[in-house]
Amino acid sequence: MGFDISEGEVTAPAPATCLILKERGLRPHLLIHDGIRSEFAQIDTSNPNCVVIADAGESFSYQNMNKAFQVLMELDNPVLISLGKGRYYKETSGLMLDVGAYTKALEYACGIKAEVVGKPAPGYFQSALQEMGVESHEAIMIGDDIVGDVGGAQRCGMRALQVRTGKFRPSDEHHPEVKADGYVDNLAEAVDLLLQYAHQ
Amino acid sequence: MGFDISEGEVTAPAPATCLILKERGLRPHLLIHDGIRSEFAQIDTSNPNCVVIADAGESFSYQNMNKAFQVLMELDNPVLISLGKGRYYKETSGLMLDVGAYTKALEYACGIKAEVVGKPAPGYFQSALQEMGVESHEAIMIGDDIVGDVGGAQRCGMRALQVRTGKFRPSDEHHPEVKADGYVDNLAEAVDLLLQYAHQ
Repeated sequence: MGFDISEGEVTAPAPATCLILKERGLRPHLLIHDGIRSEFAQIDTSNPNCVVIADAGESFSYQNMNKAFQVLMELDNPVLISLGKGRYYKETSGLMLDVGAYTKALEYACGIKAEVVGKPAPGYFQSALQEMGVESHEAIMIGDDIVGDVGGAQRCGMRALQVRTGKFRPSDEHHPEVKADGYVDNLAEAVDLLLQYAHQ
Repeated sequence: MGFDISEGEVTAPAPATCLILKERGLRPHLLIHDGIRSEFAQIDTSNPNCVVIADAGESFSYQNMNKAFQVLMELDNPVLISLGKGRYYKETSGLMLDVGAYTKALEYACGIKAEVVGKPAPGYFQSALQEMGVESHEAIMIGDDIVGDVGGAQRCGMRALQVRTGKFRPSDEHHPEVKADGYVDNLAEAVDLLLQYAHQ
């Protein structure tokens, strides 16, 4: 089974960041994975006046972190834009540090606070709703991350289901701060549930 | 001019950390500069039950950070010991990220708080006083770091002079939280001042 989704129907942090950069006349120094560098191809990166940080994997070297740090310290009004604030993610080789950890390092060293684009930033959910032309109470979030997906969507007035796959851990069902509106074993069950609901 | 100081008269974070590790039966995974690795030669590092982080320079690679992160995440009671909490230091090539930034990254990713050994931890100043056998009111701190040296020592009941060399910045004399008991242009002036005071 496959999903038939066109690019225009996907909201992703990199394009959302490009919009922000253009609107505010920001020229980023990019501390990102080479794999997403092409998404910033249309952006002027000369003489940078901000830093954009995303999950960079092996590119989170001391040298690259220092370069981003030095760019920020030379600015009168340092702007740090972080694509998400994930603590870590899971790979077959084990748990890996995500962008949030490295953002915290730069925040502390520079004495600044990053602007987050992507989950769980409310503006990110809202821009997705806007693009779809639906109100928050008409939308349902389905995700595997109890804080970033479920909690983030609920704070924007959406209902949210957690799927018991991917990042899901049994302890999520007793999370101290976030309670999902429902749990499903997989995405197919979520779709069945929504179709049932729609035909009632 | 040189100073004639024996090793026993110096208090440094690495030996202080070794004492703590032995007292508490901790076997560290070491995320440190190769240059100070020999200071931990007498410490059992097999089957680690804590992480010790210090300024590591180029050794702050993604791979090494992940290894330390994974060690912490596998512990029921993760212990992270940080040698200082410096934000950055100055080299001829420019500003360089210090241990504090990388400690923040691990704290955030693991959801824990590091134990700091070294300035400005009060226990660190107190152990130096103990080794010298003097009370805090009998000691004077002389340092170039308004927060780590001057503020840290004052919180332990010591008086503190700031030298206008090294890390000193003119704005330090108007720091919002810390006010030195005096300022000197260099270490020699501090010594002259203390000798004058002693002969009064």
